Amino acid sequence: MKILAVDSSGLVASVALIEDGILIAEYTLNYKKTHSVTLVPMLDEIRSMTELDLNTIDAIATAKGPGSFTGLRIGSATVKGLGLALDKPIIAIPTVDALSMNAFGYRGLVCPMMDARREQVYTGIYRFKEAGKREPLILLEQCAISIYELASKLEEKAKSLAKEGELPILFLGDGVPVYKESLDRLMKDKGLIYEYAPCHMGRQRAAALAALAESYYERGIMETASEHSPEYLRVSQAERERMEKNDNT
Amino acid sequence: MKILAVDSSGLVASVALIEDGILIAEYTLNYKKTHSVTLVPMLDEIRSMTELDLNTIDAIATAKGPGSFTGLRIGSATVKGLGLALDKPIIAIPTVDALSMNAFGYRGLVCPMMDARREQVYTGIYRFKEAGKREPLILLEQCAISIYELASKLEEKAKSLAKEGELPILFLGDGVPVYKESLDRLMKDKGLIYEYAPCHMGRQRAAALAALAESYYERGIMETASEHSPEYLRVSQAERERMEKNDNT
Repeated sequence: MKILAVDSSGLVASVALIEDGILIAEYTLNYKKTHSVTLVPMLDEIRSMTELDLNTIDAIATAKGPGSFTGLRIGSATVKGLGLALDKPIIAIPTVDALSMNAFGYRGLVCPMMDARREQVYTGIYRFKEAGKREPLILLEQCAISIYELASKLEEKAKSLAKEGELPILFLGDGVPVYKESLDRLMKDKGLIYEYAPCHMGRQRAAALAALAESYYERGIMETASEHSPEYLRVSQAERERMEKNDNT
Repeated sequence: MKILAVDSSGLVASVALIEDGILIAEYTLNYKKTHSVTLVPMLDEIRSMTELDLNTIDAIATAKGPGSFTGLRIGSATVKGLGLALDKPIIAIPTVDALSMNAFGYRGLVCPMMDARREQVYTGIYRFKEAGKREPLILLEQCAISIYELASKLEEKAKSLAKEGELPILFLGDGVPVYKESLDRLMKDKGLIYEYAPCHMGRQRAAALAALAESYYERGIMETASEHSPEYLRVSQAERERMEKNDNT
């Protein structure tokens, strides 16, 4: 079973190809170029290097959101186009769930965070507990909250799980450099043990998305290319401004 | 601080660029093409995509071995050439240590294994225990042993650590598909809890190598390009055959 995976939900553009649980190719770029310029050439690069006939893939996976509005639209447009042209199903994975997979098997709580602007992060709380299980336990579903609210949720989860021994928290994602100082203070105030993910686990990876997509595929959780649309979690700035304007008139 | 990392120790070719603990680009290929054909074009691809001036990197990291003899020679030749031309230090990372970093933070024992032929695997046993520590604890240093010997070592480590609770074992690397049946039998016979790494953690990644190289760099563990040479752990087939021939004459 072959899955092509694409993630452009954040600052990172990433594409991967997996076959029967083995990574064939992955290309990840975290650079100032826009996804509309990089994503398709990156995809074409791995297609050409692996001599891939796109008709042989079984499904196309993508990060469905939340994330950068433009990034999500570029990713969705790309996989919708591919899915329609090739007549292949789309596997739409919640962005934060896919990020948590970077730390598959981690010994404590996994807390991805993406900068959502307006003093919020897109985040969630995850755990890997049972050997052989290919999906994380979701302790807090992906959502847009402030890091203060997040810190309270982490404290609550860590305390309720204290009987299982010391559970460190692993932070990862592009929200980390933005909120690191506040996080350090909050975690120390609450007496929670925590660490930051090293560079190879810190950002979106299409291969981690593909690992989760493989599990979704086996469970039959797919949609058609025409059904697929991103999930923004919040309204866009333009929509918000229009609503505020309408409220004021 | 910028590190360029190259891994061609196994079936996989992988290149990555990190800067100050953040992954800038990574390109990994697990395909039948030989490393001598893919490695430098892959490196040039990420150099061009990230508009990288190679003179701005601080060090070049590589998997020093064990691994495929030809793969190691291609990797070493590439980084020696780059290191000499750019006058940059080489950070040589034990291959199996770098593989263990794929599972940074894992809740049990991490056991990478590469097929070493002649009924052996290149393997080691690792653990991640202390929050904030960027290198694994090495419980068994990288070595070439049979999987029967490995299973006994794993049993011994798991038993001696039993007081710390249930410690599952995570297997990863290109040795897994080769020895999976025997591993299943051995682990079940010994009553050990184990699992196999999902696709995004299963093979060499230059970014995981780079993460460990960052830590080596901070500790000043580097060599010059002329000092650098691969560490094969075993003698090559040609050398073995010559020695056997000499013994017989």
